[in-house]
Amino acid sequence: MQKGHSGLKVKSKIWLEIGGEPAFGNGRRRLLEAIESYGSISQAARALHLSYRKAWSHIQAMEERLGTRLVERRIGGKHGGGATLTRDARRLLEKFDKLEDGLAKIVDRKFTALFSRTL
Amino acid sequence: MQKGHSGLKVKSKIWLEIGGEPAFGNGRRRLLEAIESYGSISQAARALHLSYRKAWSHIQAMEERLGTRLVERRIGGKHGGGATLTRDARRLLEKFDKLEDGLAKIVDRKFTALFSRTL
Repeated sequence: MQKGHSGLKVKSKIWLEIGGEPAFGNGRRRLLEAIESYGSISQAARALHLSYRKAWSHIQAMEERLGTRLVERRIGGKHGGGATLTRDARRLLEKFDKLEDGLAKIVDRKFTALFSRTL
Repeated sequence: MQKGHSGLKVKSKIWLEIGGEPAFGNGRRRLLEAIESYGSISQAARALHLSYRKAWSHIQAMEERLGTRLVERRIGGKHGGGATLTRDARRLLEKFDKLEDGLAKIVDRKFTALFSRTL
């Protein structure tokens, strides 16, 4: 194999599973982050091109599998309802980001060591 | 969140890309491994429920993107043609396995440290 492989890159992905079923990953992270940004499940869903129903079923599945409440809905109020993330949801996001960040660095380092010059 | 999350597991996946296009990953690894086992592209394709055409196009794409020959076809001979992996292909498999193994261990360790008791 030619030296260098100048364009060759390693990619990695992590996700969490419970009982073989996906519990949390990149898509659900984006959903939680969007709920945090918009303060609303329906606006978050729209931004991610999901139906409200689909977004809601993702949230329910995550909450059920992880055994904790992740999204707090506020009902009514001056500007109508809204949604915020619970402390557990924020911690989950933070931990998942840490896990992923550390990983990407290590994968890159290992990849460089193994693949840097020749096959 | 409840302590323990007894069933919560982290999963990880790696693959190689060149110019944003997949160059090598789990599926293509299985294909090369099957060619090695069966000594034949058509038998390998059958075992993986791929058409010969599809298997061949995966091989060509890998070889082109990685810039090296991975599968050597032997034509004719006493028992008809056959295929073997090149040294570069064996090295690629070995390096990819190493990268993945090391990774899984690290991800598990980091995951345990971050998620072991509570969110």
